[in-house]
Amino acid sequence: MSLFAAVQVLLGAAALAGPSDPTLQIAAVLRDRLLGGRGAAEIAGSLCDGVGPRLAGSDGAREARRWAVRELARLGLRNVHEEPLSEPRWVRGAETAEIVSPVRQRLAVAALGGSGPTPRDGIEAEVLATKNLETLAALAAKEPAIARGRIVFFTERTDRTRDGSGYGRAVSIRYGGPDEARKLGAAAVVIRSVGTSSTRLPHTGVMKVEPGIAPLPAAALSAPDADLLERIAAGGVVRLRLTLGCRTEPDAPGANVVGEIPGSERPEEIVLLAAHLDSWDLGTGAIDDGAGVGIVAEAVRAIAVLPRAPRRTLRVVLFADEENGGRGGAAYANAHRGELDRHVAALEMDLGTDRVYRIAASGGPEADAVVGAVEELLRPIGVAERAADAGGGSDVAGLRAFGVPMLDLNQDASRYFDFHHSADDTVDKIDPANLAQATAAAAVLAWVVADEPGTLGRIPPEKRTVKHW
Amino acid sequence: MSLFAAVQVLLGAAALAGPSDPTLQIAAVLRDRLLGGRGAAEIAGSLCDGVGPRLAGSDGAREARRWAVRELARLGLRNVHEEPLSEPRWVRGAETAEIVSPVRQRLAVAALGGSGPTPRDGIEAEVLATKNLETLAALAAKEPAIARGRIVFFTERTDRTRDGSGYGRAVSIRYGGPDEARKLGAAAVVIRSVGTSSTRLPHTGVMKVEPGIAPLPAAALSAPDADLLERIAAGGVVRLRLTLGCRTEPDAPGANVVGEIPGSERPEEIVLLAAHLDSWDLGTGAIDDGAGVGIVAEAVRAIAVLPRAPRRTLRVVLFADEENGGRGGAAYANAHRGELDRHVAALEMDLGTDRVYRIAASGGPEADAVVGAVEELLRPIGVAERAADAGGGSDVAGLRAFGVPMLDLNQDASRYFDFHHSADDTVDKIDPANLAQATAAAAVLAWVVADEPGTLGRIPPEKRTVKHW
Repeated sequence: MSLFAAVQVLLGAAALAGPSDPTLQIAAVLRDRLLGGRGAAEIAGSLCDGVGPRLAGSDGAREARRWAVRELARLGLRNVHEEPLSEPRWVRGAETAEIVSPVRQRLAVAALGGSGPTPRDGIEAEVLATKNLETLAALAAKEPAIARGRIVFFTERTDRTRDGSGYGRAVSIRYGGPDEARKLGAAAVVIRSVGTSSTRLPHTGVMKVEPGIAPLPAAALSAPDADLLERIAAGGVVRLRLTLGCRTEPDAPGANVVGEIPGSERPEEIVLLAAHLDSWDLGTGAIDDGAGVGIVAEAVRAIAVLPRAPRRTLRVVLFADEENGGRGGAAYANAHRGELDRHVAALEMDLGTDRVYRIAASGGPEADAVVGAVEELLRPIGVAERAADAGGGSDVAGLRAFGVPMLDLNQDASRYFDFHHSADDTVDKIDPANLAQATAAAAVLAWVVADEPGTLGRIPPEKRTVKHW
Repeated sequence: MSLFAAVQVLLGAAALAGPSDPTLQIAAVLRDRLLGGRGAAEIAGSLCDGVGPRLAGSDGAREARRWAVRELARLGLRNVHEEPLSEPRWVRGAETAEIVSPVRQRLAVAALGGSGPTPRDGIEAEVLATKNLETLAALAAKEPAIARGRIVFFTERTDRTRDGSGYGRAVSIRYGGPDEARKLGAAAVVIRSVGTSSTRLPHTGVMKVEPGIAPLPAAALSAPDADLLERIAAGGVVRLRLTLGCRTEPDAPGANVVGEIPGSERPEEIVLLAAHLDSWDLGTGAIDDGAGVGIVAEAVRAIAVLPRAPRRTLRVVLFADEENGGRGGAAYANAHRGELDRHVAALEMDLGTDRVYRIAASGGPEADAVVGAVEELLRPIGVAERAADAGGGSDVAGLRAFGVPMLDLNQDASRYFDFHHSADDTVDKIDPANLAQATAAAAVLAWVVADEPGTLGRIPPEKRTVKHW
C-alpha cells in the first residue's frame, strides 16, 4: 500500500480529525485560507482593467507580458522571465453583414481568427444553409457545385453542458468549416456562434488556415442573428452581403511568462501550473483566461508565503497565443524538451470562473492514490467527482506525447460559453467566491503533487495521443 | 348597484358557473381561445423578420406602415388607413468610445436618439463622473466650471423591478442629462445604459433636444463598460475619446396606421386599442413594441371573428414615432380632437412579452365596476392585482387632458429592461405563451369596455395631468 493509499484509509477512518501527513495538513491550510479570499478575482481584474484585450501579436499582448512579469515578481515568485517566441498577428477590421433579399436586415457578426478579408465592398452571394460538416459533405456528394460562389452558413447549435462537451461537439465547425467550404469553391462562410448565449454578441475563435493558401472570409453570427437568417433561409433564396476588413500581418515577437517557487529537495523536478495570458480581442478576456491567470497567480502567492517551499519546483507558465494558433504551448515544449522527463505533472486552468466539481489525472498507476488524497481534501468544497482521464489544457496537452502526467480540475462550464470569445467576456462575469473555490482546489492539487515524495508516474506510451477540442 | 357590481356579486357567488352577462360570457370565450394561441407571437415575428428596425423617418418605418395596413386588413379590420404626420429623422452613424488614459480600453457605446454628432475625429476630454442630475447640480453649485469642456458621465444604475419603476427612476438622466450638461458647458455626455442587462450591448433612447439649440453629443455605455469606466475613474483622472457620426435630417413623412371594428349599436363611441409601430434602430423591435403590435392585432382578429361586433367601435391605432419624439400620439390627439369626448377608453400595450399581473383604470367612479368585472375574468389567468390608477401608455396618455379614461394592463417588466432599446430586442426574446396570456387579457378588457352598455365615465378635471416617465 502506498503512502497515499494509507492516507486515504486514515482519512476515511478519521475524516473529522483531518490528514496526518504533513503535506496534506499544509494542503488543508492552503484550502481554507484561499476559500474565502478575493485574491484571484483581484488579480484577474487587474489584468483585464489594466491591460484589456490581448490577442497574440497585439499591443495588448505586449502590455500583458509586462503586467505578468511585474505581477509574478510581486507575488513572490523567483526566476521570473519571458521566454521569447514568434506570435501570429491577425487584426480585426470593420465588419458588417446584411441580408439584402428577400428582406433587408443587418446582422451582428465577428470574423473568426485567421479569416481572410472580403473585398473592400464586401461579398454578396446566395446563402447555402447547412447544419454542419457532415451535412455539407452530403450535399456536395450529391451536387459537387452546390457551394460554389455561395456563402456557406453552418447552423449547428451549441448545447449547454456542465462539462463543456457541447462546445466540444460544435467547435469543429468553427475550426474546420471555412476550409471545407473553401475546398468546395464557396465565397465565404458564416457560422452560428459556437456559444450558448442568446445575446446579439457573436463569439469569435480560431479557424484552420492552411499554409500558403488564402483563407476564406469567415465569420460568426450571434445566435439571434443566426436564428433570423435560418428562418428566412427556410423560406427560400437569401442573399447576404458580408464585409470583413480583417488582415493577417507578419508574425510579431511574443513570449510565455514564467516564474517559479524553487523546490526545497528536488528542484530539478517540475510541476507545471499554467494558464494563458492572451485573450480574444472582443472582450477583456476575464473568464478566458483572466480567471485562470488569477487562479494560478493567487494559488502560488499562497504557496510562496508558506513556511517552507514544496519539495519540487512549482513552475508557473502564463502562455502566449493559446487562442489563435497555440504557439505558446508549442514553444514551451520545444524549449524545454530536455527537461520534460522531469516534468512531474501539468495543470492548466482555462475554464472560467465557476466552481470545480471534478478532478482527474492521467499518469501511471501511482496517480490514483495522489488524486484520491487530494479528492478527500477537496470533497468538502464541492469537488465530488472523479473522471477517468485528464486531457490537459490546450497549452500543456502537447506534453502528453512525452509522457508528462496531466491533471484536470473541471470547472462547471454551464455559463462559460455564454461569454467565451465574445465581447461579453468582462470582469463583471467573474464570481469571486466561485473563483476562490477553484483557486483553493488548484493550490491544493499543485501543492500536493509538488510536495509529496511519490510521483504520478508517466502516461503510458499507448495513451500519449494529444486530444484537441 | 350597477350592472357590473351585480355581476361581480354573482361571480363571487358562482364563479364556477361563469358569468351570466352575455358580454362577459363572450369575454370568457375570447380569453380561453386566445390563451393557448401563438397568433400574437407570429404577428410580431412577421413584423420583426419582415421589416426589422423601424425608427421614425427611416425606410423601415415606411415598410412597417405598408406591413401594418396589409396586416390589419388581413385580420378583418375595416376602414384601415394611414393618418399622415411629420416624423423626425435622426440617423445613427459610426460610433466609438475609448478610454485613452490612464489605460486604453474600447467601450461599447450607442448614441442617444437626437444626439448631436462629434467632430469627425471625435472629442477627447477628461471625464466627470457623477451619479445623476442632482449630484451634477450639487457639484456645479460648488464649482460652476466643473463640467466645462468635460465629458459628463452619469453612473446611476437601473433597478430591476416588476412594475418598471426602476426604469422610471433612471430614465430622467437619459432624457434630461445631456441638456443639463450642455447648460454647464460640457463637451459631451455618456451615461450608464438605462437598462438592467449585464451584456456589452448599450441601450439607446430619446434625449431632450431644445428647439434651435444644437444638442450635445450623448451616448449610452453598456453596463460592463460603465462599470469599467467607473472603476478607472475612481482611481483618478480619466480621458475618454468619443466619436459619434449621428445626424438629424429634415422631417420625413410618416403616419399612424388605423383600423376599426365598427360598433354595432354606438359606432360613434370609440374604444382605442393601441401599440406603437416604430422601434429603435439597434434591434428589430420585438419586445418594444412588436409584442404590443402582436397583442393588439391578435386581440382584434379574435374579436373580428366573433358572431357579433361590440356595441361600440373598437379602434386599433398603431402609432408612429413613440420612441423618438412622440409625434404619433400628438398627431392623433390633434386630428381627432372633435371626437375625443366620444373616446370611451384607451389601452396601449407597450411593455413587452411577459404576463399581465395587474389591471387598472382611470375614469369616473363607474370605472371601478367595469374593472372589477374584468378582474374576475382575468384572475384565473394570473391578473391578481389592481392598481389604484392607470397612467396610460405614452401615445395615449395625452388624451387624459381631455378626460379620456385610461386602461392599463401591467405586464411583468422584470426582464423587459434587459433587452429594451438595445440590439438584443429580437424575436427570440418573445415568449409565445406569456404573450398569449397578455393578448387574452387585452382582448377581454377591450371587448368588455367596448360592449358593455355602461361607460368608465371621464377622468375628473383635477386628475387630467399627463404623467410621463
